[in-house]
Amino acid sequence: MGEGTGKSRTIVTIYGQQYTIVGKESPDHVKEVASLVNHKMKEIKGKNPYLDSGKLAVLAALNIGDELIKLKEEKHNTKEKDGE
Amino acid sequence: MGEGTGKSRTIVTIYGQQYTIVGKESPDHVKEVASLVNHKMKEIKGKNPYLDSGKLAVLAALNIGDELIKLKEEKHNTKEKDGE
Repeated sequence: MGEGTGKSRTIVTIYGQQYTIVGKESPDHVKEVASLVNHKMKEIKGKNPYLDSGKLAVLAALNIGDELIKLKEEKHNTKEKDGE
Repeated sequence: MGEGTGKSRTIVTIYGQQYTIVGKESPDHVKEVASLVNHKMKEIKGKNPYLDSGKLAVLAALNIGDELIKLKEEKHNTKEKDGE
């Protein structure tokens, strides 16, 4: 994972814009996340062709956040069941 | 959850912009997701004051997507362990 500092630099393209992501995550993980965001933005654009890229990104974030919160709730409920 | 059609309309404010979210989710869930995105954008803005709102939204989406993919992997690994 990166050199020396333990940090990697990964360049990804999201909706035609390049972003350099610096962090301790592996480049493969960063690329997977970027691909998810890119895919969501294009999916939303397909349904709402009039939206600008800023709003598309916000809606993509909402979409992914929706999934995250549901998964967290699911995990929480599973834990509660296990504890019984 | 909504009336008649089973769909609810929820108006949320993210980074100063209003969005009307139509869907089968409860308004409380929609507000929770919106609050997550809004919070992430402000957090990233705090560290990168020069970024425009579109890029902030993309970075927020990446941040949330990172958490989602990690949680999915964790869930997947737990399931594999349970299956042993």
